[in-house]
Amino acid sequence: MNNANTDQERLLRETIACVGPADRDAMERAEKRQAELAKPPGSLGLLEDISVRIAGVTGSLHNRMDSRRVLVFASDNGVCEEGVSSAPQTVTMAQTVNLTKGLTGCGTLCRHFGVDLEVWDVGVKVPYRCEAVIDRRIARGTANLYREPAMTRQQAVRAILIGVEAAKKAGTDGVNILGIGEMGIGNTTTSSAVLAVLTGRRAADVTGRGGGLTDSAYARKMEVIDGAIARHQPDPKDPIDVLTKVGGFDLAAMCGAFIGAAAGRIPVVVDGFISVVAALCAVRLCPAARDYLIPSHRSYEKGFVLASRELGLEAYLDLGMRLGEGSGCPIAFEVVSAACAVLDHMATFEEAEINDDYLTEIRAGDSFTVAP
Amino acid sequence: MNNANTDQERLLRETIACVGPADRDAMERAEKRQAELAKPPGSLGLLEDISVRIAGVTGSLHNRMDSRRVLVFASDNGVCEEGVSSAPQTVTMAQTVNLTKGLTGCGTLCRHFGVDLEVWDVGVKVPYRCEAVIDRRIARGTANLYREPAMTRQQAVRAILIGVEAAKKAGTDGVNILGIGEMGIGNTTTSSAVLAVLTGRRAADVTGRGGGLTDSAYARKMEVIDGAIARHQPDPKDPIDVLTKVGGFDLAAMCGAFIGAAAGRIPVVVDGFISVVAALCAVRLCPAARDYLIPSHRSYEKGFVLASRELGLEAYLDLGMRLGEGSGCPIAFEVVSAACAVLDHMATFEEAEINDDYLTEIRAGDSFTVAP
Repeated sequence: MNNANTDQERLLRETIACVGPADRDAMERAEKRQAELAKPPGSLGLLEDISVRIAGVTGSLHNRMDSRRVLVFASDNGVCEEGVSSAPQTVTMAQTVNLTKGLTGCGTLCRHFGVDLEVWDVGVKVPYRCEAVIDRRIARGTANLYREPAMTRQQAVRAILIGVEAAKKAGTDGVNILGIGEMGIGNTTTSSAVLAVLTGRRAADVTGRGGGLTDSAYARKMEVIDGAIARHQPDPKDPIDVLTKVGGFDLAAMCGAFIGAAAGRIPVVVDGFISVVAALCAVRLCPAARDYLIPSHRSYEKGFVLASRELGLEAYLDLGMRLGEGSGCPIAFEVVSAACAVLDHMATFEEAEINDDYLTEIRAGDSFTVAP
Repeated sequence: MNNANTDQERLLRETIACVGPADRDAMERAEKRQAELAKPPGSLGLLEDISVRIAGVTGSLHNRMDSRRVLVFASDNGVCEEGVSSAPQTVTMAQTVNLTKGLTGCGTLCRHFGVDLEVWDVGVKVPYRCEAVIDRRIARGTANLYREPAMTRQQAVRAILIGVEAAKKAGTDGVNILGIGEMGIGNTTTSSAVLAVLTGRRAADVTGRGGGLTDSAYARKMEVIDGAIARHQPDPKDPIDVLTKVGGFDLAAMCGAFIGAAAGRIPVVVDGFISVVAALCAVRLCPAARDYLIPSHRSYEKGFVLASRELGLEAYLDLGMRLGEGSGCPIAFEVVSAACAVLDHMATFEEAEINDDYLTEIRAGDSFTVAP
């Protein structure tokens, strides 16, 4: 381990040490207020949970999510050589540029909802020029993880710190809520591999078909993942080692962005399979970061449910989207914003002047049963 | 059957006859455009389906959902005498007024999202004064359907026509999309009863716990529903007869609003259990109305899945909300609006300048598998 690495890693450890838990007092006050609002207890479901989470992040019960940003980290993965992906790597470059123009799915949705979209290149393979992309390219894609570690430990730490930087910039820019997305052909393979190591599973338990694969390509994908893990033996207790050996620059930067958001006390939306794996890496590195995560769209990638469960995240958008890019975030922001509005503006029983009989009945906890 | 009834019912039949099917040509053009957008086929899931549905309603591929309205129909149900509800009837009145003040869950969400909320009183029991409520009170609540038919056929037709009127007013006001909600203690009992008749089921197959009931009240609720159906023998082939005998003024007016929206070619959001039962009544009366329905929030009332399946509606919000009032509509409007934006503004493969290799691969239908 060289000195540069040690210095950078020390910086990362310092950032992690800065992350404090959510404000439990604010969360209790939010829960108390939710119980006083003129509705059967729990009848606003996850809107209530989300409003309490946000109160814990900001320490306040009066939250407005006016300034919203999706961070997209783009990079290429050497493992594409193994035929694990249904699209060529040139697509990473093309869509990275198209994201900044509002032409992709996520780009269109961000533009529609007035969401700021910031694209960070942490390792796109194909050269291009686009001033709207923030250039933090670590290398022209990772190495082929089936043959050798995807990157050096130094590169992994550097990618994580770029993610921290991106979240820190959001704080400086006054962003109220972040969403973390990605663009990188082959990154369902890296995500599945990282998840398999972190949860001690085989590829078959955590691997989906990504953008859409034939049966033979799917079998190959699992063989590549299990093979890489067997070859490099990443240490499940050391998320940086896992990202180094079987991860990607995008995953590592996303992991850093989750940590950076927590350090800056910005709520951060986890959207889709790759995002949830990055969030799991973040929480393994920095357990307190868990309190800053907000769920979003449900993914049908196998590993999504596994990682979500471990993080205690209950997704609530079920639109069957499978585009990646953080494309569910702009809609999730609207839901989070609505949750905050309910906590802040809905009337309490007293304000609504609902009579005492109703108060008595509706507040009698045991006469109400929350729907399954 | 008296003449007044015949005249009113003739008017209703004329409205129903005016409802044409969706514009299949526009839907085909929307599907074709979705296939040209720069993404794997189907990767935007229900956003694609919704955009196609909206194109069918308006006949155009360029839709903006700028003017949005939730119609809430409020009324009381005599069946509350049987102890089927967890809250007293005074709550209907209190919340009807509170809705107009933006103090309830739906009211708060409408205010937050800039959605117009219009409250129509079609039969609230307790007297009150509130100028913001549109007064079309048919009676002070319905009769107790366990003992006698809930209303006369004439009243049912009148309630349906009030709903048609409300939708027609929305058209005149330039509303782009409607949502249909309700306020009426006891209306999960009427909805379950109507659904049981329309689908030939027993109460146990379609009845949930509504706002929250004890075991004994829940058993009583099912006994009341099965008993009422056995006593009055509503004709499943005649939805007006079903609404008359075991329905409510709110349900009937909501049914009318769905028909009126279809007649005015306005897309209309079905939100929650009571709304989906009203929509099923509307489609049984007017099959072409089905094309104008847009799904929203998932309900865990047992009957919801049954009715949704029959209507071909796939709910996509899974927030665990169970407040009624159409409270999911304001969030659903954001999703519909996003769906329209994607169809209108996302780049095609050509516009995105994605290279031919990718085009070939990504368009090869069989290399892509839609996630389950």
